[in-house]
Amino acid sequence: FCKLSYLFINFALGSRYVSKTATKSVSEFEYDAPSMKTAVPGPKSQELLRQLGEIQNVGAVHFFCNYEESRGNYLVDVDGNRMLDVYTQISSIPIGYNHPALMKVMTNPNNVSTFVNRPALGILPPENFPDKLIESLLSIAPSGMRRVQTMACGSCSNENAFKTMFIWYRERGYANPSEQEVDTCMINQSPGCPDLSILSFMGAFHGRTLGCLATTHSKAIHKLDIPSFDWPIAPFPKLQYPLEEFVRENAQEEARCLEEVEDLIVKWRQKGKPVAGIVIEPIQAEGGDNHASPDFFSKLRNIARKHGCAFHVDEVQTGGGTTGKFWGHEHWGLDDPADVVSFSKKLLTGGYYHRDELKPDKPYRIFNTWMGDPSKNLFLSEVLNVIRRENLLEVVTRSGKALLQGLYTLQTQYPHILSRARGQGTFCAIDACNDATRDSIMIKARNKGLFMGSCGEKTIRFRPALVFKEYHVHQLLNILNDVLAEHK
Amino acid sequence: FCKLSYLFINFALGSRYVSKTATKSVSEFEYDAPSMKTAVPGPKSQELLRQLGEIQNVGAVHFFCNYEESRGNYLVDVDGNRMLDVYTQISSIPIGYNHPALMKVMTNPNNVSTFVNRPALGILPPENFPDKLIESLLSIAPSGMRRVQTMACGSCSNENAFKTMFIWYRERGYANPSEQEVDTCMINQSPGCPDLSILSFMGAFHGRTLGCLATTHSKAIHKLDIPSFDWPIAPFPKLQYPLEEFVRENAQEEARCLEEVEDLIVKWRQKGKPVAGIVIEPIQAEGGDNHASPDFFSKLRNIARKHGCAFHVDEVQTGGGTTGKFWGHEHWGLDDPADVVSFSKKLLTGGYYHRDELKPDKPYRIFNTWMGDPSKNLFLSEVLNVIRRENLLEVVTRSGKALLQGLYTLQTQYPHILSRARGQGTFCAIDACNDATRDSIMIKARNKGLFMGSCGEKTIRFRPALVFKEYHVHQLLNILNDVLAEHK
Repeated sequence: FCKLSYLFINFALGSRYVSKTATKSVSEFEYDAPSMKTAVPGPKSQELLRQLGEIQNVGAVHFFCNYEESRGNYLVDVDGNRMLDVYTQISSIPIGYNHPALMKVMTNPNNVSTFVNRPALGILPPENFPDKLIESLLSIAPSGMRRVQTMACGSCSNENAFKTMFIWYRERGYANPSEQEVDTCMINQSPGCPDLSILSFMGAFHGRTLGCLATTHSKAIHKLDIPSFDWPIAPFPKLQYPLEEFVRENAQEEARCLEEVEDLIVKWRQKGKPVAGIVIEPIQAEGGDNHASPDFFSKLRNIARKHGCAFHVDEVQTGGGTTGKFWGHEHWGLDDPADVVSFSKKLLTGGYYHRDELKPDKPYRIFNTWMGDPSKNLFLSEVLNVIRRENLLEVVTRSGKALLQGLYTLQTQYPHILSRARGQGTFCAIDACNDATRDSIMIKARNKGLFMGSCGEKTIRFRPALVFKEYHVHQLLNILNDVLAEHK
Repeated sequence: FCKLSYLFINFALGSRYVSKTATKSVSEFEYDAPSMKTAVPGPKSQELLRQLGEIQNVGAVHFFCNYEESRGNYLVDVDGNRMLDVYTQISSIPIGYNHPALMKVMTNPNNVSTFVNRPALGILPPENFPDKLIESLLSIAPSGMRRVQTMACGSCSNENAFKTMFIWYRERGYANPSEQEVDTCMINQSPGCPDLSILSFMGAFHGRTLGCLATTHSKAIHKLDIPSFDWPIAPFPKLQYPLEEFVRENAQEEARCLEEVEDLIVKWRQKGKPVAGIVIEPIQAEGGDNHASPDFFSKLRNIARKHGCAFHVDEVQTGGGTTGKFWGHEHWGLDDPADVVSFSKKLLTGGYYHRDELKPDKPYRIFNTWMGDPSKNLFLSEVLNVIRRENLLEVVTRSGKALLQGLYTLQTQYPHILSRARGQGTFCAIDACNDATRDSIMIKARNKGLFMGSCGEKTIRFRPALVFKEYHVHQLLNILNDVLAEHK
């Protein structure tokens, strides 16, 4: 333990990034370290689990939290345990717990009405709605996109993005539907409800409502017993690590997947279920933190264009700065990266951007009661201010490099336990040798004050907030090293 | 106009309800009448429409609102027009705008953290989560239900309610799926993703995500161009009004529909797409405010039981007190009204209750990132306090009787324009002779300070908040009478 700890300090001193950070102190409002009082879940959490179990399935609950006492990167539980949180509510807390800037939004009397009167945004928007969209969501719009639709959550965002692509694909212009289309659509039949499809990738996660779920292929438990659509599913590249040792193999693997995409598009067209859109994550998250090269995405985008399919990039987990750029797809370096980009989680509101061409022809085609929530837009505006003011994308880039370097060191140190360290920004992951070992490492780390998430079959995923500094990286690596040293 | 106005006053004096209300003044915080400065939308709204039109389709936007200045039953727009609002953000504002009790929730410093730190409720609930569920949602649980799952919106509530019924229908107990089921579900194929169906009714509205949309059959514009499922659709009774003159015909019509339901269940079982659940609204809202008798619902519930289908009552629009009882289905007088009851809108959070038998066997089967929003539960708790303290269910019953009586009077007065006045509580509606007349009445009324909603082909629907008093009923009726008198 001492040896590795020393190693990290050395690494820190050797890095131009860390020396910078050393001059900055962690924000005053934050704690400085984990502090554990009980095993997790502790006795209070266990009692609450019993109570909640009378009302809901609690099999997925880790522990109960004291959000009032949580600060920055540290999550405090009801038993008084304070953990370094690198899972951040399934990657949905952008700038840590109880950030002072967000507290101020709440205590500003001008904002009260926005929280108390949730409008039906599609029919009766508030006066400041266009301004708020411009200052928040449009200020971070992906390249080529000036239109955005807010939604309440990630699933609704993707469901409505799919609908937008289906509507676009039918190329109605402003022509009215035929009588037959009107009649058949009311009873779920073609041609009113056409047999269109969305092409997705094995290992993908795009949500759990029935439309989204038909494009989700990460874990059986998500899909079992739920009816689905016969839509095409392409393989996602399985890259071999370290990347620099498998350049040729990985390029071949990506080419194989792209070829399969084109085959499926042709096949489904022949089946009479043409592909209206292709949906993909810049990094498959829930499916196991699977990466592909910018070249893969660039070629995929061209295939979509060639075959007249809309190209939908799902940034629900990758968006919001966690990869070191605001959107994961920015790493591809394309001017025209997508036709639709959906978001949620760290953006606090769900929604999707789209190119002008995908504008629905009529009102009420994309619609629901709330169409988002302006109180979430208020918080988002402030989050964006903080990201700019505190240069958080740079922080993420720096911390991400330190984290990935640390993971490389750990897998070198423990090659029989760890492999495939990978990441972009702080969106990092590492594989354990099997799921039981992964789970055991996670529980032991939690009891030492480090709360991590899992994904895929045997992967640990790191999803810290954007305020995760190199200081926190070293805390993380030291705890992980402790656990691994004991495991050895 | 004077004549009818007098008539309403007479009615008011003659009613035991009104005499009571007369002693109460409208809450101090509210305005006392509409006040119009421009036609609606006014110049400021029109300019904002232009701005928002650059970002979104604004074809459904009526006008822009000044929510800060809105109070109780009165919605103020950006041009300073103050309207009596009987549409309440598509029936989603429970106790009027800027209710002082809700303002207090916002200014209570103990609540700040709940707004600022939105948790992933399925894995890391806050300490007070079980207590908050017990004091809010479980305190109003439908008969026979002790389990509730929150969700972010109405569509997600219904999507997950459907999933819950599919999972229940497969009767796994706690047995693991077969290897074949695991493998096939990952690629959207049977038996892992089985060909199960949900039976819905023509005219129904259950949401717009792809699963919900397969059970929605209210308007073509909702469904056109979106792929769907081959699920059975039964006719919903078309009752003739006045009900007392068509007792026999309506009973026959309901029997016909029930017979068709049984036929469809058998037919779809034979097709290999068995009906896992039946979903129905207590009053079809979006589809045109279509009612059926308690006897119809009672027999339908029995049919569901007989054929082993789950019975899902969608209370997204009828729930929350607007019918004079907290749930629309309470009017049926059944001890065991449903297996699943979904809600949203006036309850501020989405979600669904279900009977113990429908408890999912494993974690992560019903799951998403947020699983609701505790800040909405905070508001709901306070709304329920206000409903109890101010006896709002009685207020709704009284105001509803006055409103329906007034609509009867109007349709007697204007039989060539209006017909089929109907309602339960303040959940009332009346038909115009055609859609153009309906739309024209609504626009004229809006310019006189009365904002109403439409549904179905030619129906005006009334969806006031629960704080809508008889005083407001008379304002509504007087404006409507003015418009009709001019129309004549």
